[in-house]
Amino acid sequence: MTNQRDGAARTCSSPPGLSVLKFGGTSVKNIGRIQHVAGIVDSWRQSAPALVVVSAMGDTTDYLLKLARQCSSDPDRRELDLLMSTGEQISMALLAMVLRYAGIRAKSFTASQVGIFTETVHSSARIIDVKTDKILQAFADNEVVVVAGFQGVTADGDVTTLGRGGSDTTAVALAAAIGAPRCHIYTDVDGVYTADPNVIPEARLIKQISYEEVVEMSRLGARVIHPRAVELARRHEIALRIRNTFKPHHEGSLIDGGKDMEIHRAVSGVAIDTDHARVAIMDVPDRPGVAGKIVKALADRHIVIDMIMQAFHPTTGLSSITFTVHRSDLDQTIGILQQVKEELGAKEVLADTDVAKVSVIGAGLSGRPGIAAKLFATLGDDGINIKMIATSEMRLTCVVGTADAERAARLAHQAFDLDKAPSPDR
Amino acid sequence: MTNQRDGAARTCSSPPGLSVLKFGGTSVKNIGRIQHVAGIVDSWRQSAPALVVVSAMGDTTDYLLKLARQCSSDPDRRELDLLMSTGEQISMALLAMVLRYAGIRAKSFTASQVGIFTETVHSSARIIDVKTDKILQAFADNEVVVVAGFQGVTADGDVTTLGRGGSDTTAVALAAAIGAPRCHIYTDVDGVYTADPNVIPEARLIKQISYEEVVEMSRLGARVIHPRAVELARRHEIALRIRNTFKPHHEGSLIDGGKDMEIHRAVSGVAIDTDHARVAIMDVPDRPGVAGKIVKALADRHIVIDMIMQAFHPTTGLSSITFTVHRSDLDQTIGILQQVKEELGAKEVLADTDVAKVSVIGAGLSGRPGIAAKLFATLGDDGINIKMIATSEMRLTCVVGTADAERAARLAHQAFDLDKAPSPDR
Repeated sequence: MTNQRDGAARTCSSPPGLSVLKFGGTSVKNIGRIQHVAGIVDSWRQSAPALVVVSAMGDTTDYLLKLARQCSSDPDRRELDLLMSTGEQISMALLAMVLRYAGIRAKSFTASQVGIFTETVHSSARIIDVKTDKILQAFADNEVVVVAGFQGVTADGDVTTLGRGGSDTTAVALAAAIGAPRCHIYTDVDGVYTADPNVIPEARLIKQISYEEVVEMSRLGARVIHPRAVELARRHEIALRIRNTFKPHHEGSLIDGGKDMEIHRAVSGVAIDTDHARVAIMDVPDRPGVAGKIVKALADRHIVIDMIMQAFHPTTGLSSITFTVHRSDLDQTIGILQQVKEELGAKEVLADTDVAKVSVIGAGLSGRPGIAAKLFATLGDDGINIKMIATSEMRLTCVVGTADAERAARLAHQAFDLDKAPSPDR
Repeated sequence: MTNQRDGAARTCSSPPGLSVLKFGGTSVKNIGRIQHVAGIVDSWRQSAPALVVVSAMGDTTDYLLKLARQCSSDPDRRELDLLMSTGEQISMALLAMVLRYAGIRAKSFTASQVGIFTETVHSSARIIDVKTDKILQAFADNEVVVVAGFQGVTADGDVTTLGRGGSDTTAVALAAAIGAPRCHIYTDVDGVYTADPNVIPEARLIKQISYEEVVEMSRLGARVIHPRAVELARRHEIALRIRNTFKPHHEGSLIDGGKDMEIHRAVSGVAIDTDHARVAIMDVPDRPGVAGKIVKALADRHIVIDMIMQAFHPTTGLSSITFTVHRSDLDQTIGILQQVKEELGAKEVLADTDVAKVSVIGAGLSGRPGIAAKLFATLGDDGINIKMIATSEMRLTCVVGTADAERAARLAHQAFDLDKAPSPDR
């Protein structure tokens, strides 16, 4: 994710007070919801021009993908992008129609029409440049501008799509290009929580959180907004507000640089990720470059690994290397390791799917070893076995058995007083 | 129709033997049919580059229109064109995927991508210019080119649609631009018949017919191809072959200049049209400009009238004016005539919906009064009352009661030996 570098030129001629509003697929699922969205847009444009980004209607993306799979087991990427981009084109035109029917001047644009230029990579293109002349002209004509999310166009006129989280990225890139200081991400949840409220009922809505913390959280399964969009917002200093489309008067969560936070929490949230498995290659003769060889063999097949650790046994002179991979990559990973095993003269390859990552995230974690100690003690006191540990600037992850995951998360949530943190929204 | 003037620049650098193939909505209704179409395309591209134009899949257009009507009772035309154009974008991408999956190089293009430029009139734009560089480049790369029918783009980048018969028009305009001498219109019938086979079982497939005759026929309800596309083909001397997608080895019907016709028939076909009603404004004081005033009042509301005739009664010094209008325009027409009646001091406005137009069409009609005589005698001998008569260069139309329409058509079909005409296709 972090090597995704979407670009967008900032302009200074944007109207004051301008906000970008982005509505996800569930928010525009049917015409009734599109009418509801039009009401929200209308209240915004009372005070300033409105720039709206929409995803495809609810199930459209799945329907189009199903058609493509009936055509080919491996649909051509260029054609797939042309196909998928119709989803957002449909919802943008419908929203503009509803707005106009309500007497509100509005105009919709595809990415090709706006000029959201990307590299020539289909299905996961990065944004290179965003033109603003059509948008500014429409603002000058007092029009609400509706733009199709998720899509781009190459310099050669080919349609591209931006991959996962694409519409969030479109919204932030447009905000950056047009000079809007703020981007409102309307979705079907109230905002960013200290933990998944479905798992931990005491989870609390976070009023304000930093870009970096949200990036860590969303990587760990809390999918309110795609980390790529947050990263782009961070670079362009665009504040993001996560809002619930169905509770438009709720304030939701503000994601920004975190400088104004009234409370400097050590820990902001807890996340559970059960999508990964643990893999180990055991008793490798310890030579320089062994770990590098394994990582390269996996990277060549685009398999992303995490939590890599190497243990050396001085008595045998052998090393063991353990890491986690996404479960969907597990079979392929084992196949690759079996080959590498022969080459390296390792003893065996082990896989463990009874793993869950429980992480605590917080901008205040780094340089405070007491927090890790507190977490380990809390889990240990409750008899939870920790299989692996990894730390980064802003997160502390323990791999535990799947049966222990929810209990571990709840204990951590409690231990760091997340259920008690002040949150004026509630 | 006749003042629709689609333009297309002819080029000379097109590959020899090139044909344009157009597939209608029923031909690409589902993935199974798209796969069938891919087979037809494959057999064509064995001998020469293939340029394929597709309509939207079966019910897509209706589905999108339904969504639009849920948004607005009068959807904005610009937004409606953006919405509707997704239908052809979906089918073109799917066909290209299927072709590529079968190992055939293929690439699809929207009208914007090709550069099918139209005037800025939404829902019924006329083509101004067609660019060929992307198509020729794809041919040079040995790719089958699939283009979305029905759509265009303005110089300003706005998406337009071409209105009824749009995909036929796209196919012919591309053929003209690329210098293809021939355009194959694949549809769900075998070709052009001497009459509607559902009404007259003796109807025979016409092997070869002139542009002008087909234009007359399709205006009278025989909807194999849109007259606008035929008119464009006539101007650019592009031969059209109507073929049945589901009988790809059938020759179908050839539409061309008619110079090579082996048999110069006086009458080529018979058509029935039950979509019109007869309207009359009775006993208007006869002054110059009375008819013109009525026609103008209707034309101002975009109501198309046909078969206008004026009868003067010397004894009263009053005139009556009678004409036909499309049934969907009847109520509005009566309303306008009621106003005009007051102004002109006419006596009354009459409407008659018990009318059907039975026409015989043929390039050999003009200058042969014996044919009209034969038709009137045939109908009269059978006790069929003729309410109105109109003739043009290539057609002879009788308005009869709806109950008599099928019988009148069958009698005419027989009287002019259409059931016996040689037709080597059968």
